[in-house]
Amino acid sequence: MAPALDRALREGTGTPRTLHEAMRYSLTGEGKRVRPALCLASCEAVGGRVEDALAPAVGLELVHTYSLIHDDLPCMDDDDLRRGKPTNHRVYGEAMAVLAGDALLTRAFEVVAEADLPVEARLDCVRILAEAAGPAGMVGGQALDLETEGSEDVDLPTLQYIHTHKTGALIGAACRLGGRAGDGRAEEIAELGRYGEKIGLAFQIVDDILDETAGPDQLGKESHKDRARGKATYPRLLGLRESRARVEELGKAAVETAGRFGDRGMSLEVLARFIIQRSR
Amino acid sequence: MAPALDRALREGTGTPRTLHEAMRYSLTGEGKRVRPALCLASCEAVGGRVEDALAPAVGLELVHTYSLIHDDLPCMDDDDLRRGKPTNHRVYGEAMAVLAGDALLTRAFEVVAEADLPVEARLDCVRILAEAAGPAGMVGGQALDLETEGSEDVDLPTLQYIHTHKTGALIGAACRLGGRAGDGRAEEIAELGRYGEKIGLAFQIVDDILDETAGPDQLGKESHKDRARGKATYPRLLGLRESRARVEELGKAAVETAGRFGDRGMSLEVLARFIIQRSR
Repeated sequence: MAPALDRALREGTGTPRTLHEAMRYSLTGEGKRVRPALCLASCEAVGGRVEDALAPAVGLELVHTYSLIHDDLPCMDDDDLRRGKPTNHRVYGEAMAVLAGDALLTRAFEVVAEADLPVEARLDCVRILAEAAGPAGMVGGQALDLETEGSEDVDLPTLQYIHTHKTGALIGAACRLGGRAGDGRAEEIAELGRYGEKIGLAFQIVDDILDETAGPDQLGKESHKDRARGKATYPRLLGLRESRARVEELGKAAVETAGRFGDRGMSLEVLARFIIQRSR
Repeated sequence: MAPALDRALREGTGTPRTLHEAMRYSLTGEGKRVRPALCLASCEAVGGRVEDALAPAVGLELVHTYSLIHDDLPCMDDDDLRRGKPTNHRVYGEAMAVLAGDALLTRAFEVVAEADLPVEARLDCVRILAEAAGPAGMVGGQALDLETEGSEDVDLPTLQYIHTHKTGALIGAACRLGGRAGDGRAEEIAELGRYGEKIGLAFQIVDDILDETAGPDQLGKESHKDRARGKATYPRLLGLRESRARVEELGKAAVETAGRFGDRGMSLEVLARFIIQRSR
């Protein structure tokens, strides 16, 4: 993954040095690469070659990284630590961090549009990524998260809306992108989308749980931030025990969906189990 | 243009209300719509139908609007006034302004990918737009502008690099997008790109001149900001008279290029004259 991510930044091709450094700083390093992994596994699940899904996988990580940089900004979550390192704006300043995020997002669409895939597939991938990352997807979830912050009466449906958009949309897209890049049938891609929705929600509940229970060493970022900011979370609304039960349930359903792809769904199954285990 | 811009935001299709409002606030209103106009005129120049270039034109205005919102942020240019109204973050807060910009940028690629054009043309348009807006284009120019701010020894080549990237790249893209959407030949699209480069540089020099000479009523934003922030500008490096001479020269060359498209280049010619006249 790392060489592909590095190539995506195309050093020496017209990007000013500091901007390039700021982009690279957040893109490379200790990410879990969950979205690229899901994208590649989904491509595998429909019988595609891993190489086919590489460009969408890189595009996903570029989009995810931009969202982290902007999320960490002082005017947003104001975080100092991310993936065990100082956040982008702590190193390069706020203005450069905004631009680095903007540049990563823009570059994502270029990378996907330039994928080594038939034009129809490339175009579909651009649309899937844009829809999932945009105002009716990830950014929409972030906006609602922002609006409800500090509010005492966020109910479970609202929280679920925030989670399915803020995190779930891009994770669902990761699976559908892999399916589309691997030339899967429409029903397969839809099935992958359902798998992704479950995994995406489970993943976010795990994040909520870890924010409560883990220390900064384990997280690579500050913990207990959600509670401090008065954010609605699953543990806060349902308690830890019930939150963990939800993760198990979603994970089990995801494993079952992965099973429908037979041997080819093996990686998807492994990824689902990996995500559930993080919450224990 | 206004209905097409409004449609691009697709009210009621999953975008949270405040985010939608913030996007709409900056997108609609008193913009000059220079980039869409150049895109449509370029489509005309190669014999295309105006409708063909509508989606790329909307995409350009979405990208341009996002860049204004992020540019105006307190950590960037810290502007209170834009197009005669309070800037986005003054109305919706910094965090929502960051998200509104992110959402507009993302949506731009979706709009272009969904254009009513053959798939190859749509894909080319996505690539042209992403390249021009990204780290080797507009954002690259902004990053270098940021880095050289307050520096006493910015020379003309550096300033020209900043201008051709920060403003020129997207204006050049506007012309090439119109040419591509109108199914122009490769040589025609290249010619349109050259026209766009000239117009783009002229446009930015005019902006520099107006920042020195015009009042806020005329600009719809605060004036004398460049000097206050120690920004390198054409008037500062070359003086007002020489800056105006450059605009005339670039404009004349652009009019000449427009002339090569015969009667179909009429709108491009008019736009070139319009841009020169702003500086007088």
